[in-house]
Amino acid sequence: MDKELDEKTIGIALLGLGTVGFGTYKVLKAQREEMPHKIGVRLELRHILVRDKEKAARRTGEPALVTDNYDEILKDDKTQIVAELIGGIEPARTYIEKALMAGKHVVTANKDLIAADHGRLLDLAKERHCDLMFEAAVAGAIPVITPLKQSLAANHLTEVMGIVNGTTNFILTKMTQENMEFSEVLALAQRLGYAEADPTADVEGLDAGRKIAIMASIAFNSRVSFENVSMEGIRQISANDIRYAGEMGCVIKLIGMAQCDGSAIEVYVAPMLIPKNHPLASVNDSYNAVFVRGDAVQDVMFQGRGAGELPTASSVVSDIFEVARNIEHGCCGRISCTCYKQLPIVAPENVRSKYFLRVEVEDRIGVLAELTDVFARHKVSVEQIIQKQRTGDSAEIVVITEKVREGDFRKAVQCIADKSGTRRICSTIRVHTL
Amino acid sequence: MDKELDEKTIGIALLGLGTVGFGTYKVLKAQREEMPHKIGVRLELRHILVRDKEKAARRTGEPALVTDNYDEILKDDKTQIVAELIGGIEPARTYIEKALMAGKHVVTANKDLIAADHGRLLDLAKERHCDLMFEAAVAGAIPVITPLKQSLAANHLTEVMGIVNGTTNFILTKMTQENMEFSEVLALAQRLGYAEADPTADVEGLDAGRKIAIMASIAFNSRVSFENVSMEGIRQISANDIRYAGEMGCVIKLIGMAQCDGSAIEVYVAPMLIPKNHPLASVNDSYNAVFVRGDAVQDVMFQGRGAGELPTASSVVSDIFEVARNIEHGCCGRISCTCYKQLPIVAPENVRSKYFLRVEVEDRIGVLAELTDVFARHKVSVEQIIQKQRTGDSAEIVVITEKVREGDFRKAVQCIADKSGTRRICSTIRVHTL
Repeated sequence: MDKELDEKTIGIALLGLGTVGFGTYKVLKAQREEMPHKIGVRLELRHILVRDKEKAARRTGEPALVTDNYDEILKDDKTQIVAELIGGIEPARTYIEKALMAGKHVVTANKDLIAADHGRLLDLAKERHCDLMFEAAVAGAIPVITPLKQSLAANHLTEVMGIVNGTTNFILTKMTQENMEFSEVLALAQRLGYAEADPTADVEGLDAGRKIAIMASIAFNSRVSFENVSMEGIRQISANDIRYAGEMGCVIKLIGMAQCDGSAIEVYVAPMLIPKNHPLASVNDSYNAVFVRGDAVQDVMFQGRGAGELPTASSVVSDIFEVARNIEHGCCGRISCTCYKQLPIVAPENVRSKYFLRVEVEDRIGVLAELTDVFARHKVSVEQIIQKQRTGDSAEIVVITEKVREGDFRKAVQCIADKSGTRRICSTIRVHTL
Repeated sequence: MDKELDEKTIGIALLGLGTVGFGTYKVLKAQREEMPHKIGVRLELRHILVRDKEKAARRTGEPALVTDNYDEILKDDKTQIVAELIGGIEPARTYIEKALMAGKHVVTANKDLIAADHGRLLDLAKERHCDLMFEAAVAGAIPVITPLKQSLAANHLTEVMGIVNGTTNFILTKMTQENMEFSEVLALAQRLGYAEADPTADVEGLDAGRKIAIMASIAFNSRVSFENVSMEGIRQISANDIRYAGEMGCVIKLIGMAQCDGSAIEVYVAPMLIPKNHPLASVNDSYNAVFVRGDAVQDVMFQGRGAGELPTASSVVSDIFEVARNIEHGCCGRISCTCYKQLPIVAPENVRSKYFLRVEVEDRIGVLAELTDVFARHKVSVEQIIQKQRTGDSAEIVVITEKVREGDFRKAVQCIADKSGTRRICSTIRVHTL
């Protein structure tokens, strides 16, 4: 069973053979000849941990590699790198911890776990002098973690802003380009396999929330976990909102936003009106992109495939190469946790944004004056108030505020909702200012 | 004179205090508090090499750091990192060689030198177990070298395509948005300081040629030097070309292009018609961007500031941090030259492209037939031929070819130019196909 390994071979185990696991398997095969040149060592896939051994044996044609017993992997000293590609919190967390405790380096694509437990796992890796890499956990194929940790290290970063969920970007793009409503496009996306049967994690912003938590932690050198992120999804966005946004020179995107002035961090996921000349505005379909601002770099954007079998595997295997180089040069743990600050997270109600509000009111004289009065009482400065269209005895009003405290804005909206002349609060959407 | 350095301090010397040198000086100051946390060591600026000591002393207020004698730096054992920010071939090359020979690590922003001598300098660095980093040499602030060498290492890359010259992108953007002619915008760019008094290196594509040579070398693991790159600039592009491109759903960009099918490399700089839905099409003004295609990653794009004091310094100082981490972990030379192949470069006449040709001919019956005949005789398949406008007895014809050999196309164009009915070959521009 034990194969002869010369000194220049590093053994790997894959945990999971789903979409990303099988992609990783394929990319490792495709890179077999190149590896020794690229990293100075040969990698040997020694184990694939799965639940269904027969299926995995059929899929790979390599039954000898397949196991359902994790202890086999832990006990194999020649396996130095474990790639966790199962996803979810458990058993992934336990597997990663055990691997690190056994002195094995870990590469993972697991955003759920990293967003929840980034700090603790990195601390454990450091303690064990191991690498723990997770480029694939954020924005799939797009290099984001390495640029943030290394290529942009000479900056005080002030903003990380990303389209980091392909499903919602596909939905919003279709709504924009074909003037469709959310529910129609969601059904289409589900038929095409771009959205899950239960689309909650995508359309409610949870998936984007995990990714912005991870990026914020690295960008601002301060731990931000998933529970720090306030999230708002795109279910409420209608074709009308998108049309009005277009009239204002904007598109609507679901944005993961993290900003830091050096003393506190604002972090949230929300749909936003983005001016068409912003680089993120032309990132369409299922593409992802991350826009970063810093004191030296000014602004920089990374764009590409945020998911998919081979794109995600591109990041996983590049991380494996990086770990292998570190093993070869005896410098594992070279870059570990970079969170050396403990900055507070701004409470959601204190985050300041510019807002777009669409509201349906009774069409009568004085209604605009009443609205402006409510805003004034709640310290919400209004930039524009526009009567859009009348249907029967209803009028549709669009309000654009200045940058205001979210708490003040929400109270003003609640007060408007409670007024007898208000038929419906149609939507409240943040407006990004350049 | 010798300051006390504890073990955890690494000395640096800056060569040059021009735009990038002074930017680097400022960013090192700005990162002073963060450094020990980010890289585990403190960096100490020990020398600044300049020609005019007085001016540099005034500029920095630190006369003790300023020297005009390079030997002082070479002899200082506490200076472990030399940042060469002078540019040009000499004396930069000699300085870098001497630094490496003295066992000092080098960070450089020098595209001229790296494009000419990439391989030899990296070999020397490897021999001396030193790091030689040059992220700032390509596309300024945008992380390109690290992503190509590390984050995308698990790919067979097939295409690197970039807008890597800010001056020409500014000119083409203005021409497009304000319907101006090349010479008008060039004059404006010179007034604004976006173009040099002698704009040759920019508008003839030489600057872009250096950058695409460097990127091609890394992407395809095979040495490509500046002399391998065929270059065409943007002087011939007119407002009419841009207008017609727009009618075809395209914009015109100056593109550094490198493609590799695994057996040979095509590399050139040329203006191109780019479809508006290509990510590069919306990169405007003086922004740079690099678009990369590979078998696993699919496609990915990096966009940002390609020049400027602080943006370029962002890359220089991030490289310095990287070298410092390597020193700290005893793993310098961890990633050295990645050119382990020796692929041939395709001769320019054998490169296959789709072309846009605009020609002014005598307005008479049969002229279109004559043109199509010339193309057929030269094995140039034509996709479209359109009569655009008539002025007096002249007609303007636009021809779009299929993908054809450049040699065949050039001969056909020469043959058309020689015909008595041809008034003028207005322009020949490549068309990018997705």
